[in-house]
Amino acid sequence: VTSRSSGDPLVLPPGTSSEQFADFISRAKAICGAENVFIVETSDQLIDGTYKEPNKTHDMHAVLDRSYFVCSATISPRNVPEVQEMMRLCNEFDIPVWPFSIGRNTGYGGAAPRVPGSICLELGKNMNRILEVNTEDAYALVEPGVTYFDLHEYLEKHNLREKVWIDVPDLGGGSIIGNTIERGVGYTPYGDHFMMHCGMEVVLPNGELIRTGMGALPDKTSGHRDGLRPDEQPGNKAWHLFNYGFGPYNDGIFTQSNLGIVVKMGIWLMPNPGGYQAYMITFPRDEDLHQVMDIIRPLRIQMVLQNVPTLRSILMDAAVHGNKKSFSNSDKPLTDAELDEIAKKLDLGRWNFYGALYGPEPIREALWSIIKKAFSAVPGAKFYFPEDRHEEYSVLRTRALTLQGIPTFDELRWVDWLPNGAHLFFSPIAKISGDDATLQYQVTKKRCDEAGLDFIGDFVVGMREMHHIVCIVFDREDPESKKKAHWLIRTLIDDCAAYGWGEYRTHLAVMDQIAGTYNFNDNAQMKLNEQIKNALDPKGVLAPGKNGVWPSTYNKKAWAIPTD
Amino acid sequence: VTSRSSGDPLVLPPGTSSEQFADFISRAKAICGAENVFIVETSDQLIDGTYKEPNKTHDMHAVLDRSYFVCSATISPRNVPEVQEMMRLCNEFDIPVWPFSIGRNTGYGGAAPRVPGSICLELGKNMNRILEVNTEDAYALVEPGVTYFDLHEYLEKHNLREKVWIDVPDLGGGSIIGNTIERGVGYTPYGDHFMMHCGMEVVLPNGELIRTGMGALPDKTSGHRDGLRPDEQPGNKAWHLFNYGFGPYNDGIFTQSNLGIVVKMGIWLMPNPGGYQAYMITFPRDEDLHQVMDIIRPLRIQMVLQNVPTLRSILMDAAVHGNKKSFSNSDKPLTDAELDEIAKKLDLGRWNFYGALYGPEPIREALWSIIKKAFSAVPGAKFYFPEDRHEEYSVLRTRALTLQGIPTFDELRWVDWLPNGAHLFFSPIAKISGDDATLQYQVTKKRCDEAGLDFIGDFVVGMREMHHIVCIVFDREDPESKKKAHWLIRTLIDDCAAYGWGEYRTHLAVMDQIAGTYNFNDNAQMKLNEQIKNALDPKGVLAPGKNGVWPSTYNKKAWAIPTD
Ligand SMILES: Cc1cc2nc3c(=O)[nH]c(=O)nc-3n(C[C@H](O)[C@H](O)[C@H](O)COP(=O)(O)OP(=O)(O)OC[C@H]3O[C@@H](n4cnc5c(N)ncnc54)[C@H](O)[C@@H]3O)c2cc1C
Ligand SMILES: Cc1cc2nc3c(=O)[nH]c(=O)nc-3n(C[C@H](O)[C@H](O)[C@H](O)COP(=O)(O)OP(=O)(O)OC[C@H]3O[C@@H](n4cnc5c(N)ncnc54)[C@H](O)[C@@H]3O)c2cc1C
Repeated sequence: VTSRSSGDPLVLPPGTSSEQFADFISRAKAICGAENVFIVETSDQLIDGTYKEPNKTHDMHAVLDRSYFVCSATISPRNVPEVQEMMRLCNEFDIPVWPFSIGRNTGYGGAAPRVPGSICLELGKNMNRILEVNTEDAYALVEPGVTYFDLHEYLEKHNLREKVWIDVPDLGGGSIIGNTIERGVGYTPYGDHFMMHCGMEVVLPNGELIRTGMGALPDKTSGHRDGLRPDEQPGNKAWHLFNYGFGPYNDGIFTQSNLGIVVKMGIWLMPNPGGYQAYMITFPRDEDLHQVMDIIRPLRIQMVLQNVPTLRSILMDAAVHGNKKSFSNSDKPLTDAELDEIAKKLDLGRWNFYGALYGPEPIREALWSIIKKAFSAVPGAKFYFPEDRHEEYSVLRTRALTLQGIPTFDELRWVDWLPNGAHLFFSPIAKISGDDATLQYQVTKKRCDEAGLDFIGDFVVGMREMHHIVCIVFDREDPESKKKAHWLIRTLIDDCAAYGWGEYRTHLAVMDQIAGTYNFNDNAQMKLNEQIKNALDPKGVLAPGKNGVWPSTYNKKAWAIPTD
Repeated sequence: VTSRSSGDPLVLPPGTSSEQFADFISRAKAICGAENVFIVETSDQLIDGTYKEPNKTHDMHAVLDRSYFVCSATISPRNVPEVQEMMRLCNEFDIPVWPFSIGRNTGYGGAAPRVPGSICLELGKNMNRILEVNTEDAYALVEPGVTYFDLHEYLEKHNLREKVWIDVPDLGGGSIIGNTIERGVGYTPYGDHFMMHCGMEVVLPNGELIRTGMGALPDKTSGHRDGLRPDEQPGNKAWHLFNYGFGPYNDGIFTQSNLGIVVKMGIWLMPNPGGYQAYMITFPRDEDLHQVMDIIRPLRIQMVLQNVPTLRSILMDAAVHGNKKSFSNSDKPLTDAELDEIAKKLDLGRWNFYGALYGPEPIREALWSIIKKAFSAVPGAKFYFPEDRHEEYSVLRTRALTLQGIPTFDELRWVDWLPNGAHLFFSPIAKISGDDATLQYQVTKKRCDEAGLDFIGDFVVGMREMHHIVCIVFDREDPESKKKAHWLIRTLIDDCAAYGWGEYRTHLAVMDQIAGTYNFNDNAQMKLNEQIKNALDPKGVLAPGKNGVWPSTYNKKAWAIPTD
């Protein structure tokens, strides 16, 4: 621990002296403009933002000490060459840099870096153009700062929703690029965002700029010409039509990784299906989960369920209606009897299923009759359309928007289940089956109980599997509550790994632990990831430790997370 | 040029002495068994196979001299550890190795290696088990030697087609793994084979074994236990359900690449859709191409066209009915008048469109009425179901099988359009549009004319683009014909690059040229590919030069293809 000099940040980048840092900052200001460089000097500056106004310096849902996952400075480049120069500068100074787009990655770490004292490179502030919306071929080309809301508003403003829809996550404030490269999910038929991306422009750790897929082929007929800046060259006309291009298909290595900074990305839009109907099906009993899942599997694999549907536990819906206090005076996990009571009060099931039908009426009719018949096998199942629900904060009415690609903020309400509500996502993958769902629910619920926390979660059903999203809500001003949440997620990771379940994405605090569970054949995959990392980023400056991948310049043990 | 010693192959691996080669071979025999090592000693042994009996030593549709793309020996490992040992051996001896599964990659080089004298590693001969067919979750797990025919026959034998279908290319004799990692295409809704793969087991250039995606998480509940050989460990139960796993998603870098040998792969099967109807629509005039394409685009993007449909030029169909001689005595490219004549004679259009409807009757009806109405806008369009066509070799009757995943050999017939028929595929990507299709057709047809070859081709319509497949048929016993074919493909590559079009896959002879067209920002993508290649394969032994990616141990210029 060195004593602080004036101008020092709260946490210096590792191995960086005060002078070096000051030098670096003045060089960074020369590149990006002083107004785009913010230094975190004191812990007073670590003010938790809100989802609507996220902070850009630390994890606003901190599960460790607020000043642990913290950057030394947040720097916001204005364009692609500045991103490239920043990468070169970080290499020159050996300073780690953590890129993010918007910083709304709550539950997974927000804007915060894995290595304390890293530079946070905020891409979304100045690089936020919608570069193209092509309704004929149904795609958009965006920069990192474009949120789902931005793109949706663009469609509305230009009257384009008659032609194309977007796919949105539960909340619409995230970056399209940030969410996609984290392999986030939405709920229309286009819910697998990475599958639906097409064509990237990426700054590599050494500052080089590539375009992937067909983007690598300069297209004179699109206006590509000598003399233009590479990032300003018009793209190949098939860049956002065909993903793979020629030779190795590299896009995947830029997802959940620390191998590049994505500065442009194409995303496929869904053609307006010519008809739409959202619905909810409620199931009265906790144990209905088993039967319901076995009904879902064949319907989803056959695409009778056309979209990414969700099966939500009662508390996930209840928490949208009100906080825990509004339902109970208990400070313990709610009992089955209490949950039944809440379900009854809200006229919901213990499990509630949200889906939608897409297409002209005869197609919707045909699908609905199959779906209705299948789920009617569950005693007490009830079927609703949005107009059947009149309560304030009706989840069905919100889902009816989400499932047609209209972003909302409503789901944010469940984060406030507890006072000073913060959350961590625990999100294991499982087979779509009654046995797996029930076992995974039991295993996770048991540990929630032990931690004294309520189980709030849902199953998000993909093409052949489901993402089980367990929302660990805690009180961020209560050290005990934070400790429990941290204990809970660490315990769940190990419990689930013993059952062969792994997570699809995670928070900074447990990246190493989860990476450690994907250890087939003596960690062969991690060795491969490290080889690639070291080749592309020999100094290890780009997001060291992201998802457990440490460059050889870091001693991974020394950076282990304190767990006390 | 060294003088040959006894035991020498026709072409020694580069930089390898006779003794070293002999040593290597005896070590290889010890690993794989003498019966699995075949040395190419004389050019007499280079007997062109047929599609049904492909050779494993050279390109049986050679466009250069038959002895150019030739291996020194073909070695067929019996299991994964032998593949690993062979990789270690090749590293030890600095000998290049070219893996293939079946060797039916005709039009793209067959079994032949890019570097003459490489070892051909034939994976399919001994490693050909169908390891799992899971009808509940709709996937299969296969080894390299499993062909589309094999898997289809397995489904038939076990009466599983009621539950699941496979997706097949035009011909069913290829390897599921080989085709998928070359990013080949089929024609059902599951036609994008790479998109529909899920989970790989890969031997890296250094001999290490990884499993990708969820496969990296050992699953005790599936039987994973200490002491078992890694490749024999039962896989994670979500390995073939969820592609991405955790952290960087690496599968794409093992496609069209030289970074690994895929020894197991999961592939999603299509649930039996509960109803099926294939159809053909014929369009009378050459210039209908324009209008037809603009009709196809919105229907395909909206998935009203549910599968990967094809629009075939008259000669692609005619050549299935008979060879050129059977239609004409001309040895020049057929004229428009002659083509019209042929179309009339066969009761086909100048362009013929093949698609299918999937699902229960009401869904098929709804879709068919939209499709029929849309294409009826083309004057003279005619609509057919398979039962409407009674001629021998009806392409529609064959497509009616292909489009429901039943493999055939029928399409092979067009390769015999000329005597000693051989072929090269030229396959650029384009936007689905009348303008692009027409221009690409004109540009390619003009050069076919100049080469004195008939235009035989089709447009294979993907999600947002089309693969235009130009089948360059030549006479492999006629040096002039070969020269023309080679000139034609080289010229087309440059012509198309000038229009911004690039190819999705190619023959050994033009890999460097095509890679050179994907040169955005001073070949930034190739530099990245080379960096990764050099990191994972420092000696550059695995398939050097594949798709233009040369390791630093090779002087790429010295390996340029002779073009005279
Ligand atoms: C109530 C609630 C509901 C939610 N529902 C969903 C949901 O349905 N689906 C879902 O997926 N998520 C969901 N989330 C999580 C999260 O809000 C979203 O995923 C959000 O889109 C991520 O935030 P962001 O785009 O601002 O990410 P950022 O913070 O901008 O980025 C996240 C991470 O991605 C990487 N990254 C971002 N941009 C780049 C770039 N340009 N180059 C390289 N790396 C980059 C960095 O590692 C960064 O840390 C939910 C959150 C809440 C609170
Ligand atoms: C008339 C005709 C029609 C055709 N139609 C189609 C079509 O509709 N769609 C289509 O995609 N193709 C088509 N083809 C081309 C070709 O026949 C198929 O793609 C075939 O599946 C490839 O042959 P294979 O599987 O035997 O490949 P292989 O020769 O086994 O492999 C091809 C290449 O893939 C790589 N490879 C293979 N296996 C491995 C492995 N395990 N690990 C690492 N690398 C490996 C190697 O580079 C190898 O050279 C057609 C060909 C003809 C003649």
